[in-house]
Amino acid sequence: MNDVQRIEPRTLKGFRDHLPETMIPREWLIETARRVYRSYGFAPIDTPALEYLEILTGKGGEETDKQLYKFEDHGGRWVGMRFDLTVPLARFAAQHVGKLGTPLKAYHIATVWRGENTQRGRYREFMQCDFDTLGTLAITADVETVLVIHDLFEALRIPGFTIRVNNRQVLNGLLDHFDLADKSVAILRALDKLDKIGADKVAAEMHQTAGATADQAGRVLQLAELHGSNQEILAALDRLVAGNEKGQAGVAKLAEMLSAVVAAGVDEGRVRISPSITRGLDYYTGTVFETFLDDLPGIGSVCSGGRYDNLAELYSKQELPGIGASLGLDRLLAALEELGMVEKVQTPAPVFLAYFDVSRLHDYLRLATAIRAAGIGVEFYPEPKKLGAQLKYADRRGFRVAVVAGENEWAQDQCQLKDLASGQSTTVPLDDAPGTIAELLKASPA
Amino acid sequence: MNDVQRIEPRTLKGFRDHLPETMIPREWLIETARRVYRSYGFAPIDTPALEYLEILTGKGGEETDKQLYKFEDHGGRWVGMRFDLTVPLARFAAQHVGKLGTPLKAYHIATVWRGENTQRGRYREFMQCDFDTLGTLAITADVETVLVIHDLFEALRIPGFTIRVNNRQVLNGLLDHFDLADKSVAILRALDKLDKIGADKVAAEMHQTAGATADQAGRVLQLAELHGSNQEILAALDRLVAGNEKGQAGVAKLAEMLSAVVAAGVDEGRVRISPSITRGLDYYTGTVFETFLDDLPGIGSVCSGGRYDNLAELYSKQELPGIGASLGLDRLLAALEELGMVEKVQTPAPVFLAYFDVSRLHDYLRLATAIRAAGIGVEFYPEPKKLGAQLKYADRRGFRVAVVAGENEWAQDQCQLKDLASGQSTTVPLDDAPGTIAELLKASPA
Repeated sequence: MNDVQRIEPRTLKGFRDHLPETMIPREWLIETARRVYRSYGFAPIDTPALEYLEILTGKGGEETDKQLYKFEDHGGRWVGMRFDLTVPLARFAAQHVGKLGTPLKAYHIATVWRGENTQRGRYREFMQCDFDTLGTLAITADVETVLVIHDLFEALRIPGFTIRVNNRQVLNGLLDHFDLADKSVAILRALDKLDKIGADKVAAEMHQTAGATADQAGRVLQLAELHGSNQEILAALDRLVAGNEKGQAGVAKLAEMLSAVVAAGVDEGRVRISPSITRGLDYYTGTVFETFLDDLPGIGSVCSGGRYDNLAELYSKQELPGIGASLGLDRLLAALEELGMVEKVQTPAPVFLAYFDVSRLHDYLRLATAIRAAGIGVEFYPEPKKLGAQLKYADRRGFRVAVVAGENEWAQDQCQLKDLASGQSTTVPLDDAPGTIAELLKASPA
Repeated sequence: MNDVQRIEPRTLKGFRDHLPETMIPREWLIETARRVYRSYGFAPIDTPALEYLEILTGKGGEETDKQLYKFEDHGGRWVGMRFDLTVPLARFAAQHVGKLGTPLKAYHIATVWRGENTQRGRYREFMQCDFDTLGTLAITADVETVLVIHDLFEALRIPGFTIRVNNRQVLNGLLDHFDLADKSVAILRALDKLDKIGADKVAAEMHQTAGATADQAGRVLQLAELHGSNQEILAALDRLVAGNEKGQAGVAKLAEMLSAVVAAGVDEGRVRISPSITRGLDYYTGTVFETFLDDLPGIGSVCSGGRYDNLAELYSKQELPGIGASLGLDRLLAALEELGMVEKVQTPAPVFLAYFDVSRLHDYLRLATAIRAAGIGVEFYPEPKKLGAQLKYADRRGFRVAVVAGENEWAQDQCQLKDLASGQSTTVPLDDAPGTIAELLKASPA
C-alpha cells in the first residue's frame, strides 16, 4: 500500500456514525417502540428510501423541496430520498389498501434524509418511528393512539411525562365565534408557535398572515390561559363553543376520549387537555397531541401526531381518514442522555470471559456455550494476554461480570466470578457458573 | 381535490414496498440475528447511507462504480449511497478504532443500494446483516465466527444447514506446488465459480485469465473431488501440501478450528471442510466459509465470509486484520418462504378483540389492557360492526384467538374465546381470560 494515496476517513457534514455507546440505547428504544406497537396489533411496513421525485414533491412545501436529496438515476428517472414517513405512507396506502383492507394499522421505523441547515445541531439523516391507523373515523382509534404513547413511555421507564391533547374541531368552532373561520389555517399555524415565540409574536403573526385584529388575536390566545383540571378546562371550552355545532362536537370528543383512556388504566395526570395545541400542519382535522418530558419540557414534544381526514388524496380517489403519531427518536435519546437515563456501555453482552490458559481453549469454549445456553451473553477474549490487561478492557467496555479460570481453577472444575462494579470475587463449580452469574446480574440490574 | 391532478402511486423499478406479510418474518430474522450476535458480545454500529464518493469508489471495481447511486449534493459535494457494508466498516474502523480499541466486535444491519440489472430478479435496495471481529489474528475469532453462524441457523429453527469452511492458505500452498503461486488471484476467482459454471468452464477461465495449462487446471480442480469425512479430507490435504509451510499452516488451522468448534458443542455434521471454496474476493487471506441450506442448496450460500489481513488499508496506516461474515437476509427469506417455513400472517398480535356493544367501550378497553398486561398482544376492532364481518377480518389477518363479549357476556362478567384455527369456542370469566388465552396460544404455537 505504500504506492497508493490514502483517502481521509470522514463522514459528510450533518451525518454521523453511530458507535456502540449510542447504538445500544438506540436499539433498545426501537425495540421497545416495536414491542408496544405490536401489542396493539400495529404491523410493520417498509417503503424504499428512493421514490419517484414527483411522489415526494407532490405534497411538500417549498421548504421541503429545498431540503430534498434528489438526482437523476442510471435510467434517467428523477428520484429523491424520502424526507419523512408520511408521504411514503400516503403513497403506500393508495397503492396497497385495496389488498390490505381497512382498518390498516401499520408502524414504520426508518431513516429519512433532509439537507437541512446543520447550524442548530440538526442532522441530515435521522430515524422516525411512526404508527398509524388508517381507514376509520372511530374515536377508538384516537383512544388507542394515546394508549400506545402512554404504554411506550411507561415501557421506557420514563418517570415523568405528559400527553397533551386537543381537538382541532374545538379550535375551528372557536374561530367561527371570533369571525376567523376563513383564516383558520394561518391562525392555527401561528398559535402552534406559542411555546416557542411567546404570545406577543404570535399575535403579531396572526395580524400579519391572517389580518386578525388585536382583539381577535387576544381572544384566541385566551385559550392558552385556561387552566385547572381536565374537567374544568372541558367545562370552560364547552361554554366558549356554546351554540357552535362543530365546536361542541369537538369538546364532546375530547371528553369521550379522556374518559376512555382513563378507563383503560391510564393515570389521569398523564393526559392533559391543552386548548392551544394545534400541530402546525394543515392536514390535521381532529384530535391532536404532543408528549412532553416533565423534567425536560424545553426540548419540546417527543411524540406528536393527530387525526387527518384524507391521507392519500394526492395519489388516490379513495378517502382514507386516519390517525397517527411519530416518535422523535433522536430527540428522545438526546433527552434521556441529558437526564442521565442512558447507561454508557459499549457491549450488549453482560459477561466477559478472560482467556489465558491456551491449553484449555476447548474448556473455555464449553463454558461460554453453557453461559449462553442460560440466555446470558458472554464475550470471550480472543487472545491469551495478561489477565490485568483483559480485565482493564472488560472494565472499559462496561461488562458487569468477568469470568476467570486458569490452571488452578480448571484443575478443580471451578471458575472465579468477578463483579466488575463492586470488585468482589467468588469461586464456584463450573456447573454452577451460569446460575450464579444470572443471580449476580439480577442483583445489580443495568 | 377535484381540481388537482393525481399522481400515480408507484415504486421505482427494482425497489419494493414491504407489506406486513413480508415484514413480520423479516423483523423476526433481523431480531434473531441481533440476539445471536449480541450473545457473543458483538455490539451494534451504524454508518450513514451517504458517504463522500471518494470513500466509496476507492475500493470498488469498475462494476461497483457503474452500480453506484451518486450525485452532487446541495453543498457541491459528490456523494454516493453505500453499496455494501464492508467499505463503510473499513472507513468507520479507520476513523474510530483509536477510540474504540481492539478487539472491535461489531455488527451492522443496514440497507444498501445498487443500480443493478433487475432482470435476474435482483433488487436495487436490500438489507445486509454483517458481523466482524477486528484487530486480532487469533484463531478464536475464526472459531467464534463459525459458532455465531451455527447458533444463528439453530435459532432460526432451520433443520438442515451446512457450514462449508476452507482456508486460503491451503489453496495458496497448493498453488505453489502447481507453479501457479503468482496467478493465485485469477485462479481462485475462477475456482470460486465451480458450483455455478462447472469444471470445464472453470478450467477454460483458468487458462484464459491465468494462462494455466490443462494439467495445472486439472490439478487445482482435483480439490473439488476430495471427499469423505472432515478427517479424511484433512489427511488428504496434508499430503497435498507436504513440504509447503504456508499450506501446512493452513491445514493445521483448519484442523484446530474444526476441533474447537466441535468442543464448543457443534454437531460435526454441521461443519464441512470444502477445499474448493475460495470466496471470489481478493482481500480474503485465511479462513473462508459459506453456508448452505440442505433442502435448497441451489440458492447458493446464505451466509458467507472470511478472514482478511488488512481491512482499512485505503483509509489508515494502522493494520487491521479481522474476520467477518454477512447474512444474506433477502436470499434467506426467499428460501425460507420456498421451504414453507414462513407463516403468512398480517398481524404481529395473536389476539383479536371484537367490538359490538358500544355501551361497553370502557369494559372492552379494560379487557384489552388486562390481556396486554399478561404480555399478549391484542388488536381491538375500532368500529362496532357486525360480528361476522369482524371475525372474517380476524381470520383474513391471521389472528389466532378471537375474544367476543356482548350484552350477555358482559352482564355475567364473562367472555367467549374462539380458537380461529379449530373454530372451537369456550366461555370463561373475564378474570381468567388472559390466562386461558395464554394456554390456548401455547397449545397451538404459530
